[in-house]
Amino acid sequence: MSKKENEFVELDHGGGGFKSAEIIGDIRSIMNFTGKWKNCEDDSAVFFLGKKGHLVFTTDAFIVDPLFFPGGDIGKISMCGTINDLAVMGADPLGISLSIVMEEGFPREDLRKIIKSIDKISKESGVPVVTGDTKVTEKGKIDKIEITTAGVGIAQKVIKNSGMKAGDLIISSGDLGEHAVTLLATRFNYKTKLKSDCGPMNHELKKVREFLTSCKDPTRGGVGANLVEMAEKSKVKVILQEKELPYKKETKAVSEILGIDIFSLASEGRFIASVRPKDAERVLKILQKFNPEAKVIGKASKGKGVFLENELGGFRPIEMPKGKLIPRIC
Amino acid sequence: MSKKENEFVELDHGGGGFKSAEIIGDIRSIMNFTGKWKNCEDDSAVFFLGKKGHLVFTTDAFIVDPLFFPGGDIGKISMCGTINDLAVMGADPLGISLSIVMEEGFPREDLRKIIKSIDKISKESGVPVVTGDTKVTEKGKIDKIEITTAGVGIAQKVIKNSGMKAGDLIISSGDLGEHAVTLLATRFNYKTKLKSDCGPMNHELKKVREFLTSCKDPTRGGVGANLVEMAEKSKVKVILQEKELPYKKETKAVSEILGIDIFSLASEGRFIASVRPKDAERVLKILQKFNPEAKVIGKASKGKGVFLENELGGFRPIEMPKGKLIPRIC
Repeated sequence: MSKKENEFVELDHGGGGFKSAEIIGDIRSIMNFTGKWKNCEDDSAVFFLGKKGHLVFTTDAFIVDPLFFPGGDIGKISMCGTINDLAVMGADPLGISLSIVMEEGFPREDLRKIIKSIDKISKESGVPVVTGDTKVTEKGKIDKIEITTAGVGIAQKVIKNSGMKAGDLIISSGDLGEHAVTLLATRFNYKTKLKSDCGPMNHELKKVREFLTSCKDPTRGGVGANLVEMAEKSKVKVILQEKELPYKKETKAVSEILGIDIFSLASEGRFIASVRPKDAERVLKILQKFNPEAKVIGKASKGKGVFLENELGGFRPIEMPKGKLIPRIC
Repeated sequence: MSKKENEFVELDHGGGGFKSAEIIGDIRSIMNFTGKWKNCEDDSAVFFLGKKGHLVFTTDAFIVDPLFFPGGDIGKISMCGTINDLAVMGADPLGISLSIVMEEGFPREDLRKIIKSIDKISKESGVPVVTGDTKVTEKGKIDKIEITTAGVGIAQKVIKNSGMKAGDLIISSGDLGEHAVTLLATRFNYKTKLKSDCGPMNHELKKVREFLTSCKDPTRGGVGANLVEMAEKSKVKVILQEKELPYKKETKAVSEILGIDIFSLASEGRFIASVRPKDAERVLKILQKFNPEAKVIGKASKGKGVFLENELGGFRPIEMPKGKLIPRIC
């Protein structure tokens, strides 16, 4: 038996870091972007529709533990994840598909709560759930419930991960990482005042998207994995200012207690974007109406890599997270 | 505690029969088809795009046991299920999203086989996989692998479940139910010559769709659940001719041995459609090039319900399957 035949999927393969890229590579190798599909390496795939603009299409699977947490639940995150993947591409989300797989014995009251939460986000975002599928498995074949959403949207101008230019300023739409630490704290019964940042971003992105040269939501893999990817695709160097990074004190504290790299913490209602310096003030003014913590956190320049500059002028590289990041939270 | 709070999801809720309708009702209640979305109660949702036609959007989740079976595997069925849901609506499928959730320890060799099979169907059907998501859960949180696909397509003329008219002839595109009995026989280690009928139908549907007044693929719930739904939505009565029903001898035999209602057996590469009598011959001629078993199996008339007429002229009603249909096979 060859070595290949002895290989097994590892948890790290799904963490959004270096190992993920390996298995996603296996899967991407079969994608054949024929005809009018393009740009399929970003958060969504894009199909050129002519005068109507671009059809944007994406999907996300959600296994969340715990199902209910401060600030959200698996229903809310399933909606926001897909709405946001469309919105960061510059699209107006048109509709969501909802696929639910549950184990036999799942409480219908919990299912109703999850559906109510989906409905709330649908109304808040203005994005309807338009099609779906429901499967029930024998007890033990799935842990409680798994939700997969897909979404379609229309974009006039597509925002690419690769659009960052030397000289651009890097903006965070708000404080980061609170979603990840909230889920972890809840799972470990660690009491905090933290609340998931999970939320739909289509309304705020609609107001600023014309000014963004690149945009991505730092979910799985956190700002670390996501900025490294953006910088690499854009062929620029990014320097972040440590003192400007919008992590709440409690987010920092919990991540230190749990020994987790703060740059790997997922957010579910924040985006990282680049803008031309002349547009930065206008963009920030708009974003701060949605979240006062929106700010410039760094700058792109010629070169490669992502670096953190501390207050003493020292630099350290931020790398694609390696190995097991954190337990599955999104 | 009220009775409601004590309710749990049952296996029957996912079987495609009467009980499924109950939980799908809970979920459908939140769907708010705003704006240009319509016809969302069929296999796919439809969004009016103007001159470009209609955007058709659908999703399907797949938990299949066994993962590999004669004639297919979970990868093939995940592609065909979604391609066919678009095709029966009259659409040309544009692209597929592929979401894979695996447990830690899943053999990478099996994953490669599944991906290869997805690739084969993608090439055969001409429908690319354009976006995806991969998650890995801790061991035991999911039974091996779950795949959810969603699909988008464009239809010039949408075929509705409700379009059957009194006088229409009912056509089956081929022999029925072989997928279901193949999976069951494989699961029970019962040796047969059966092979799943799983396959993409977009090419054959493209050639006949202009003549179809209604169309549906009898997957979950089989011809029973699906024809009952079509007749109900179309407000017609359907009479099937028992002697015309295209079940292979071995399909019949295995379903009898296992004690399963033959009308509840799923196919994954067949459709049931209605046509005006004047178009029947032309449609059959085309379909028989793809499958010689394509034939007229019944007729729609004024009234309600679905009935089976035997060779002696006796009638028995075919009803929406109740209770647990068969183990999860699609």
